[in-house]
Amino acid sequence: MLSFASDYATGAHPAVLARLIETNGEPLHGYGEDRYTGEAVDLIRGACGSPDAAVFFVAGGTQANQLVIGTMTDGGDGVFAAATGHISAHEAGAVEYTGHKVLVLPGTPEGKLTAETIKNAVSAFQRDENRDHMVSPGMVYLSFPTEYGTLYSKAELTAIYDVCRSSGLVLFIDGARLAYGLASLACDLTLPELASLCDVFTVGGTKAGALCGEAVVFPRRQTVPRRFFSKIKQHGALMAKGRLTGVQFAALFSNGLYAEIGRHANEMARKMVSVFREKGYRFLLESPTNQQFVILDNEQMAELGRSVSFSFWEAYDEHRSVVRFATAWSTTENEIDALRGLL
Amino acid sequence: MLSFASDYATGAHPAVLARLIETNGEPLHGYGEDRYTGEAVDLIRGACGSPDAAVFFVAGGTQANQLVIGTMTDGGDGVFAAATGHISAHEAGAVEYTGHKVLVLPGTPEGKLTAETIKNAVSAFQRDENRDHMVSPGMVYLSFPTEYGTLYSKAELTAIYDVCRSSGLVLFIDGARLAYGLASLACDLTLPELASLCDVFTVGGTKAGALCGEAVVFPRRQTVPRRFFSKIKQHGALMAKGRLTGVQFAALFSNGLYAEIGRHANEMARKMVSVFREKGYRFLLESPTNQQFVILDNEQMAELGRSVSFSFWEAYDEHRSVVRFATAWSTTENEIDALRGLL
Amino acid sequence: MLSFASDYATGAHPAVLARLIETNGEPLHGYGEDRYTGEAVDLIRGACGSPDAAVFFVAGGTQANQLVIGTMTDGGDGVFAAATGHISAHEAGAVEYTGHKVLVLPGTPEGKLTAETIKNAVSAFQRDENRDHMVSPGMVYLSFPTEYGTLYSKAELTAIYDVCRSSGLVLFIDGARLAYGLASLACDLTLPELASLCDVFTVGGTKAGALCGEAVVFPRRQTVPRRFFSKIKQHGALMAKGRLTGVQFAALFSNGLYAEIGRHANEMARKMVSVFREKGYRFLLESPTNQQFVILDNEQMAELGRSVSFSFWEAYDEHRSVVRFATAWSTTENEIDALRGLL
Amino acid sequence: MLSFASDYATGAHPAVLARLIETNGEPLHGYGEDRYTGEAVDLIRGACGSPDAAVFFVAGGTQANQLVIGTMTDGGDGVFAAATGHISAHEAGAVEYTGHKVLVLPGTPEGKLTAETIKNAVSAFQRDENRDHMVSPGMVYLSFPTEYGTLYSKAELTAIYDVCRSSGLVLFIDGARLAYGLASLACDLTLPELASLCDVFTVGGTKAGALCGEAVVFPRRQTVPRRFFSKIKQHGALMAKGRLTGVQFAALFSNGLYAEIGRHANEMARKMVSVFREKGYRFLLESPTNQQFVILDNEQMAELGRSVSFSFWEAYDEHRSVVRFATAWSTTENEIDALRGLL
Repeated sequence: MLSFASDYATGAHPAVLARLIETNGEPLHGYGEDRYTGEAVDLIRGACGSPDAAVFFVAGGTQANQLVIGTMTDGGDGVFAAATGHISAHEAGAVEYTGHKVLVLPGTPEGKLTAETIKNAVSAFQRDENRDHMVSPGMVYLSFPTEYGTLYSKAELTAIYDVCRSSGLVLFIDGARLAYGLASLACDLTLPELASLCDVFTVGGTKAGALCGEAVVFPRRQTVPRRFFSKIKQHGALMAKGRLTGVQFAALFSNGLYAEIGRHANEMARKMVSVFREKGYRFLLESPTNQQFVILDNEQMAELGRSVSFSFWEAYDEHRSVVRFATAWSTTENEIDALRGLL
Repeated sequence: MLSFASDYATGAHPAVLARLIETNGEPLHGYGEDRYTGEAVDLIRGACGSPDAAVFFVAGGTQANQLVIGTMTDGGDGVFAAATGHISAHEAGAVEYTGHKVLVLPGTPEGKLTAETIKNAVSAFQRDENRDHMVSPGMVYLSFPTEYGTLYSKAELTAIYDVCRSSGLVLFIDGARLAYGLASLACDLTLPELASLCDVFTVGGTKAGALCGEAVVFPRRQTVPRRFFSKIKQHGALMAKGRLTGVQFAALFSNGLYAEIGRHANEMARKMVSVFREKGYRFLLESPTNQQFVILDNEQMAELGRSVSFSFWEAYDEHRSVVRFATAWSTTENEIDALRGLL
Repeated sequence: MLSFASDYATGAHPAVLARLIETNGEPLHGYGEDRYTGEAVDLIRGACGSPDAAVFFVAGGTQANQLVIGTMTDGGDGVFAAATGHISAHEAGAVEYTGHKVLVLPGTPEGKLTAETIKNAVSAFQRDENRDHMVSPGMVYLSFPTEYGTLYSKAELTAIYDVCRSSGLVLFIDGARLAYGLASLACDLTLPELASLCDVFTVGGTKAGALCGEAVVFPRRQTVPRRFFSKIKQHGALMAKGRLTGVQFAALFSNGLYAEIGRHANEMARKMVSVFREKGYRFLLESPTNQQFVILDNEQMAELGRSVSFSFWEAYDEHRSVVRFATAWSTTENEIDALRGLL
Repeated sequence: MLSFASDYATGAHPAVLARLIETNGEPLHGYGEDRYTGEAVDLIRGACGSPDAAVFFVAGGTQANQLVIGTMTDGGDGVFAAATGHISAHEAGAVEYTGHKVLVLPGTPEGKLTAETIKNAVSAFQRDENRDHMVSPGMVYLSFPTEYGTLYSKAELTAIYDVCRSSGLVLFIDGARLAYGLASLACDLTLPELASLCDVFTVGGTKAGALCGEAVVFPRRQTVPRRFFSKIKQHGALMAKGRLTGVQFAALFSNGLYAEIGRHANEMARKMVSVFREKGYRFLLESPTNQQFVILDNEQMAELGRSVSFSFWEAYDEHRSVVRFATAWSTTENEIDALRGLL
């Protein structure tokens, strides 16, 4: 069966797996004090152009979000997120578990927040006579790419970060799929630029060729929450065998692998889009990354589902559905051809 | 440098790594809905003699503890643990983060709780006129083996579980090092017996040959907290690539590997003990598992530390320290011989 | 200056104050174990027609909401509330502080939830393929009267409770202004009926003639959360001088006072409405209770604000505002006449 | 029946009650924005010699403790307290509910912490190789007077605050019974001195002549947590009729009443002590304030309990108990005489 179900359906990229195999027998310090974690930290610092950045690794994305939100947001403050943002809808209340309210803002049709939306929400809060009885916004959460695979331009992100700084909001970029964003032909941002346009961001491994792992990056050391290492432990997010994330991220950030994984998957996605287009299929929106949202008749969906795995996304109307096809490091041209054959 | 620093210093057991390599390219469902997780669940059920058991996998031990305590303990209730128990001292407040108080009980010199200590504490609480203003005990937490590598006998565990049941306490056994406990020559319990003598327990992978992962096992399905899967997500503990723990636990519970890992490490530990004994060293206590607590003069400790890695445990007196030497799946007879040479 | 700013602007109703004065010198047990708290419990049981009801007193409404939501909602579950509901907007994240997400539902123009809206939301959740990654609804929160002073009819409440029971949702009625609701000419519910149509509700004292205090009522004893008294303490809501709420509620529920306070304020509100109407003012909506929402030109608002205190509610359009005029036990016909003079 | 059960057994001091009666009819702003709260704030500032102090009022002591600990202690940090401290034992897990661990320190026989104990605990933490896996101390909590009615001297408190400042610990003084401490003949501290020797303290009303209420005082404005007012609301501790605490504290801090209440109760306590002494009774310790801990044979205790109410404190040995006799504003010489008659 063909699989376009997700970008975490297959295991590790071969180069990542190779590093795990090579280093498997070495005795190493635990809890991230091993040499490979050190190497990964340095490589990510280099890739971010921030020799001063602080970098920590945790196993998963929800965990990373809880950790960042729980430690970077003052008690009682809320987090602005788009209604479609992962933390609003699909993290089972993980943010509220940390005691913070997700303050939902309307997103654009592409699932993005705008500087203006944020600015207006802050102003509305500040003007509200009842603001002392309300949740104060303390952070802006956005994903790059978004849940819909779309990207913020450099100008958009700059405008948002300007609003954040002038309003005292922390800007947190969830980069679970950062690889696909940065490698997109539509992306006008480099990683150092992105790092300079936020207070904290994550670099996703799980969905970009690792078996697990997200890097939490504070581009400027002085913004790292006090005793952050202990807080990782307190949140249950500290790995005893820190080597597992260290080795994988060292591999991902060596030899241009992280960029290559993004580039390859995006290229496969573009070919997949061509295939759908040539067969007359429509898309919910134009995504310049590895996730593509196709509109299928419900009968087509059922039929196609017998030979290809993909993800149901949402109902489009009574008779049609939006489904997601995702590519990954492991997607091949053969699979795209096979998909063409099936359509 | 020789390493006896911990049982999580080296990577995965070769057989575990081999299964990861073999299965790496297969596209699989995420979030634990893959076939290997299913296989691992079935194998653990079999090993526990509980076809009805519910089994879930998370990345690490603190996370597993938070999840179990946070979902199995009524809001406001506390958790009995020995002063030396991991959750009392070394989880950076992770239990309190879930809102529960650790109710510290005096342990035996071997770091164990006794049925009598628990019973007395419950009685004292129940008789206290101020009990409504106090934290009610809701759970007993114990480790098997304990932090000191020691074991509960079947009789001891039976007595504790009897007290728990008659007092309405949940009994939770932290099995981060379960492999070494069950495989110990001093152990008079089988895994099915242990499973029948508690309400929930963990089966540690990270410290027993996996790269990461703990299984949370509810021996009787009816005690699984409602919507437990969502709560794993809410606690940030759900892995997107559930295959990572699924494949590893499937390997650990195939062909007797988990038992073999425990047996081998315990055997190496016994040989290591002989070496220390023949050189005239003393131990803090007799441990029948893979962790051994040696008393060293501080000068010896410094000297030895140049060629061998081990863990400082605690000061014994002004001039002497207790240090921990741990063996693992990867410990070899050659290493034991090399240690003899150094002593 | 005339005051229609709120129903908590003046102190205690004279009959409540008299009981406080009378009983002031008596030494009494603390923490609600005094005879007046006992009397108040019995009187409320009687008023609810539930001899079996469990009744507890806390100082304030937010506290009562936190306590009920925190103890009656399973960890990780969310609470349905109207966008205009107090817990959605104006409790500064107090619900999220307990770890629960407020699941906002669209309300009617009168600020009410409907059985259909709730049913649809539950169905949407249950049908969602991603529901295990989402917050499960566990409770319905509604206010009687609503934030807009409006009421649920017996038929509406019956329909909502039916949905709740068939969907496994706890129904919680916030009765901070219950006095005004039950005493309304538009109300077709008695207190025993209301008590039989929910799982837990509050009887507000602070906004109905007491100096402070809310009663939390579980109409059926078996639904009281385990160790609820200790949880009141744990939430910081247990009053050492429980007499303060006990005496006041004993007074409020003696001699029909609670009903009389509601009746009087509602009558004053109707007269006030007549005054506004005769002067040509419009209302945002028809409220059958003590809170009235008048639309004023912004200039009128500024002018009137010099002689009368009222609450700004929200902008109606660019030039007009909605303001709230509230009556209370202390509102007099003279004040209504004085208001007429000013309009 | 004679009552020495507690200092919160009777209602409000007549002068406090009188102010409540006088002001009852005035319409006032809610949420502490009324003139009496303003007056109370100014009076407390004056009494503390801190014109810059920030003062807030909440209903009860556990609430005040949660609020202070929850907002003044960094996430994950713990609170040092004596084993006998109220937050260790008798607040039903209220501190853990805020996510913070109570770090129990051994107290002196009088229930006090010492600068040395704190200093040693901080050093032990700082030297511990595992400190990153442990709860970091963030605050010292002490009561003045302690649970045993004893007092810190100026020298002791100065030494403790010195340790706190040099160790980065917040010093929080729980002043639930501050009136009795400051008015004690054994007290060598003034209120301005106490205010200068801590970061935050409470001024108890409930146990010193008010119906309810504690003032939370930040002697130096710059240490007030950001958006503290909203956090009061978020913790469920904001009173709608803020006048209730405002008026009472305005009364308590007018005309030397707070000092007088303390002085009177302490004087009654001294007379009570004489009575017990003259009858040959022994005390657990010497308390210079209004709580006295008498050792009674269990038979005596049962017998005496028929005519006098007091509080059982703890078993002294198999045959004897420690019981607490407390005096208050309402204790009279006649009652002391009656007690003499009974002994």
